[in-house]
Amino acid sequence: MLNPYRFFDCQPETRETALALYNEIKDLPLICPHGHVDPALFAHNKPFPDPSQLLIIPDHYVFRMLYSQGIPLETIGIMPIDGTSYEKDPRKIWQIFADNFYLFAGTPTGLWLTGEFETAFGITEKLVPGNAMEIYDYMSKKLLTPEFLPRALFETFQIEVLSTTDGAADDLSYHKKIQESGWQGKVIPCFRPDDVTNLVHPKWRENIDRLSEVTSISVTSFSRFIEALEKQREFFKLMGAVSTDHGIEQPVIHRLTNAKAETFFNQALQGSITLEDARLFTGHMMMEMARMSCEDHLVMQIHPGCFRNHNTELFNKFGPDKGADIPLATEFTRNLKELLNTYGNNPEFTLVVFTLDESTYSRELAPLAGHYPAMKLGPAWWFHDSFQGMKRQREQVIETAGVYNMVGFIDDTRAFPSIPIRHDLARRIDSNYLAGLVVRHIIDEQDARRMNRALAYDLSKRTYKL
Amino acid sequence: MLNPYRFFDCQPETRETALALYNEIKDLPLICPHGHVDPALFAHNKPFPDPSQLLIIPDHYVFRMLYSQGIPLETIGIMPIDGTSYEKDPRKIWQIFADNFYLFAGTPTGLWLTGEFETAFGITEKLVPGNAMEIYDYMSKKLLTPEFLPRALFETFQIEVLSTTDGAADDLSYHKKIQESGWQGKVIPCFRPDDVTNLVHPKWRENIDRLSEVTSISVTSFSRFIEALEKQREFFKLMGAVSTDHGIEQPVIHRLTNAKAETFFNQALQGSITLEDARLFTGHMMMEMARMSCEDHLVMQIHPGCFRNHNTELFNKFGPDKGADIPLATEFTRNLKELLNTYGNNPEFTLVVFTLDESTYSRELAPLAGHYPAMKLGPAWWFHDSFQGMKRQREQVIETAGVYNMVGFIDDTRAFPSIPIRHDLARRIDSNYLAGLVVRHIIDEQDARRMNRALAYDLSKRTYKL
Amino acid sequence: MLNPYRFFDCQPETRETALALYNEIKDLPLICPHGHVDPALFAHNKPFPDPSQLLIIPDHYVFRMLYSQGIPLETIGIMPIDGTSYEKDPRKIWQIFADNFYLFAGTPTGLWLTGEFETAFGITEKLVPGNAMEIYDYMSKKLLTPEFLPRALFETFQIEVLSTTDGAADDLSYHKKIQESGWQGKVIPCFRPDDVTNLVHPKWRENIDRLSEVTSISVTSFSRFIEALEKQREFFKLMGAVSTDHGIEQPVIHRLTNAKAETFFNQALQGSITLEDARLFTGHMMMEMARMSCEDHLVMQIHPGCFRNHNTELFNKFGPDKGADIPLATEFTRNLKELLNTYGNNPEFTLVVFTLDESTYSRELAPLAGHYPAMKLGPAWWFHDSFQGMKRQREQVIETAGVYNMVGFIDDTRAFPSIPIRHDLARRIDSNYLAGLVVRHIIDEQDARRMNRALAYDLSKRTYKL
Repeated sequence: MLNPYRFFDCQPETRETALALYNEIKDLPLICPHGHVDPALFAHNKPFPDPSQLLIIPDHYVFRMLYSQGIPLETIGIMPIDGTSYEKDPRKIWQIFADNFYLFAGTPTGLWLTGEFETAFGITEKLVPGNAMEIYDYMSKKLLTPEFLPRALFETFQIEVLSTTDGAADDLSYHKKIQESGWQGKVIPCFRPDDVTNLVHPKWRENIDRLSEVTSISVTSFSRFIEALEKQREFFKLMGAVSTDHGIEQPVIHRLTNAKAETFFNQALQGSITLEDARLFTGHMMMEMARMSCEDHLVMQIHPGCFRNHNTELFNKFGPDKGADIPLATEFTRNLKELLNTYGNNPEFTLVVFTLDESTYSRELAPLAGHYPAMKLGPAWWFHDSFQGMKRQREQVIETAGVYNMVGFIDDTRAFPSIPIRHDLARRIDSNYLAGLVVRHIIDEQDARRMNRALAYDLSKRTYKL
Repeated sequence: MLNPYRFFDCQPETRETALALYNEIKDLPLICPHGHVDPALFAHNKPFPDPSQLLIIPDHYVFRMLYSQGIPLETIGIMPIDGTSYEKDPRKIWQIFADNFYLFAGTPTGLWLTGEFETAFGITEKLVPGNAMEIYDYMSKKLLTPEFLPRALFETFQIEVLSTTDGAADDLSYHKKIQESGWQGKVIPCFRPDDVTNLVHPKWRENIDRLSEVTSISVTSFSRFIEALEKQREFFKLMGAVSTDHGIEQPVIHRLTNAKAETFFNQALQGSITLEDARLFTGHMMMEMARMSCEDHLVMQIHPGCFRNHNTELFNKFGPDKGADIPLATEFTRNLKELLNTYGNNPEFTLVVFTLDESTYSRELAPLAGHYPAMKLGPAWWFHDSFQGMKRQREQVIETAGVYNMVGFIDDTRAFPSIPIRHDLARRIDSNYLAGLVVRHIIDEQDARRMNRALAYDLSKRTYKL
Repeated sequence: MLNPYRFFDCQPETRETALALYNEIKDLPLICPHGHVDPALFAHNKPFPDPSQLLIIPDHYVFRMLYSQGIPLETIGIMPIDGTSYEKDPRKIWQIFADNFYLFAGTPTGLWLTGEFETAFGITEKLVPGNAMEIYDYMSKKLLTPEFLPRALFETFQIEVLSTTDGAADDLSYHKKIQESGWQGKVIPCFRPDDVTNLVHPKWRENIDRLSEVTSISVTSFSRFIEALEKQREFFKLMGAVSTDHGIEQPVIHRLTNAKAETFFNQALQGSITLEDARLFTGHMMMEMARMSCEDHLVMQIHPGCFRNHNTELFNKFGPDKGADIPLATEFTRNLKELLNTYGNNPEFTLVVFTLDESTYSRELAPLAGHYPAMKLGPAWWFHDSFQGMKRQREQVIETAGVYNMVGFIDDTRAFPSIPIRHDLARRIDSNYLAGLVVRHIIDEQDARRMNRALAYDLSKRTYKL
């Protein structure tokens, strides 16, 4: 069912060139330096429960599309947090999914799912209403076999390293358990302190208390807060971390005076911080995080420009991550100036910038990455991690920044079984993109091979020092 | 002259796949759920006067291009509103047009006109200065034949339904006349209340008086205003309307208190409203219109982001719609939040959003439509209703929103005879776009056929409940 | 090494059509109406010193990429302005360049350099670390031959006219020397008064004094300032100038009262102008410049939207133009309204607008140029003067503005020897773009030929009245 030429231009010369490039890199191990897979999977190494719990219920890419067509989330197994009832029969959920699978035609979710069915499960029939239960039963059986245990899949997938994303106050108990198990799979944490650097986070106080607990530093002042973060970064590093990660609505980053930062922190402790001051504080913490990165060499990642939980009714009923995160126009040239002016020329510092605003690719990000030694361009992110999205990114970025100021493909997924097919899609798109340059005599084959390998493997390995 | 493969990629496999897809949908009837054709055409059913009055004088796409090259509007028949003289000889106007027809090469206007010449008139020669009068005479004769009467063309074009756009205070007399004539052509109105919801509209007071008159409700207060609008919406619905339409410079939409709305309305009645308060009032009226749509099920359409009448000198001399409307950067994620939070999860509500800011396709509109059940994406609009414009929209929208959160093609034209060629262009572009996915093995042919039919016919029929 | 089909789509029908179109225009002379070549080159007509001083040290496109990969500017011959040491051995610099030449794969700089090596120097080997010195020596010898003198190259390149860019207070001594030399090459100045219209320019006072000196008008008041500018424009015109040029961070253009302008100017003389008032003054001067252009018919060019010298540390060490200029989101619809309303309908006025914000192509610039007779669209500029950048501009502009509201290709370079290859790249891209329209039956071959010639030669010649 999966055509060997898939995703390549069908013009014969381009297609053959793309295939030749692809064949050289398709079997390289997978580097996964940023993502949201749950480390508990590998700590416990238990079988996945059933196809619906594997592929539908945890994947907001899947259920947002069903919801957009009027299918209530309760009916496809999403648990309301207000205690109201919801569908628990995975077979009923799977049938609804199959009835509506046609909605995903032409979307990356459709490509990933089709790819997983065939490459992971060996299913070559298209999922339609009529074969839903047959496919469900077949997959269910497969999931109980030893080859479908998380660690076995990790090895089959040829994952060289997988980074999870973990809160600032996390004790990394699952990572410890994995390391103590003797299993050789490399699963490393990433330090994401949003829930303590955002002073108006709903659980901020609770997280600060937990941070005090895990660091044995009583976080009662801004200076103690900084101390605790530094200590926790050190702990993450010891556990294998190579990076930090920061969500921020707009990348407005400026240093405050220490006195100001202290004041805001104390106001937060007293529960009297304003939204605007909390924003200023977050911007200040980005400067602090960059400073720490210059010292401990953790790669700093920024994921800006998303309006989280846009649908308040849905958020109140189901909580976060329900497919209602909507991108915002984002500004980098002015907003990153202070950060880049302070640390961007520092050879000890690496900053990886992601965006959901494609208009910034050629206008701001490629020129910035094509100048500052510290700055590298993240992959086509989230909605843009798709056939056309990756194509656009390559076309809009490479001419100005070159390939070697990019970080290569990053899957950024919480759907563990989709990892190989995502890398495969990216590798095919890069092979096809570079083939297009070769047949137009813009680059030669030697350059194409080097660039292709860089995008598939070398760049992420080098940037994240793996 | 019109090549059967036109607008398809010339790579043979893609071209043949596109043609096969196109052949399946090319003869589907035309659904025209939004546009600006004058209903008087079908009420009177009189012959079109001459080629210049048919194709040049009413079409700001045509004369803006001539104007941009230094040709004064007076010389091509546009009547100044200040009483100064202008060219009235349609033959002279046609000659200027023919002399400059080369300017339209590569533009959608050029494609539409060339298409109309051949498919409607049977002209297979290219319009050049030398054959201008010959073509003029030939067309003039054709226009006098019964087959070129508006109702005959409507039937030849296979239009299933055509919506006009009508002011809030319109008495729909032409629609009545059409319905009473016994002719079976389905021409329906659309409720566009901009000229009464915009408190600083130059004719606002006059329109309010007319609204009082047609509804027999004396509009002397905000509550009476709401009552009159509800009554008039009901009247439009009785006359066949399925939708409302709203032009708004920026989609800044927030509910005011009723007291505040009442105050602004009274200030407008007294002629003392400020520009800023008028904007707030318009934003409030969008919330009211959505509320009414939840009740009467008229589909709500928003056409934002246009700076109307940018050229003041020209506006003063010739009035509105003279090719000087210029798009603006537009923001949806924050601006539509209140509307979508209040009504976006309501299964009774349908909101169709248009944009002139292509940077919002992948950044804001596709993620919103890929989540909120009420929201659907309008077609590539106005300047972007073109070969490349439609291609970009498909590429930037479908991966995130899927095909089934779009509304399919809408011609949005005031140039009645261009309707078939516009639909044909869109159908060819969709067939070619989907063929490109098929030959890259991104979708299979079964999906492609379903998606193609949806874009050509099913989606607009379903969204507008036709 | 350079393939005759380079940059063309490899689909055979498209490729052959592109080649046929290209062959018709490839030998047209080069019109260079805007750029930054130093007129001293042609005044002195001395040999270029060595390959590194020819291609690396003066070209911020080249060294910004090396810098982004961690190579200090000092090591590649860029002289610090603070007196610290830097590499002076051109061979060492060339070796570093060759070692890192792979970084430029897929970038326009890579294409231009490869093209220059072959077409100007006859080098058909790819530059790699191993042949760096051999190529260096070969080029060094070539540079000493009479054919590589600047005037000889100017003639070999078939440059019909070349405009430099010159400060408001320039005495144009090099242009005089060229004219007095009897050499027939047409090198003309362009009036760029940024350094006197920007009241907070670091050398503003010095420039005003120089302006007083060259005009013999004592610039002690705003009215004298205007008088001096008008006189100097006249002088530039006498020396062959056809245009003025204006860098401005945002195109916020509004007329001030003369009293206000006078006040700001006096404050600047006294050294007490604020940043915000200086911005208002610059906006006012754009209105004044347009007014003068209506009178003296110099074409007005605006280059907005660039954050200059973004990297303060680098700027302090090396000065301006070191690859740290970063684009900004730019707004034209509102910002140009007053200018276009006042002068945009004036047949005596020509305004050429450039942008670094590609999102404005289809949204603002094409609709404006497709309406106002005075306004024409500049070429794909700077970072976007590239294979994909030009393609995007054509695709996003031509459908709305048509080809004939563009100005054709402008190289805008300071790298003199790259001029022919830049024009060749643009001509190939246009030929390929138009071939794509021909094979899709969007335009016919006759239109394609006319459009291609317009873009390659006619439009820039006509717009700049050359």
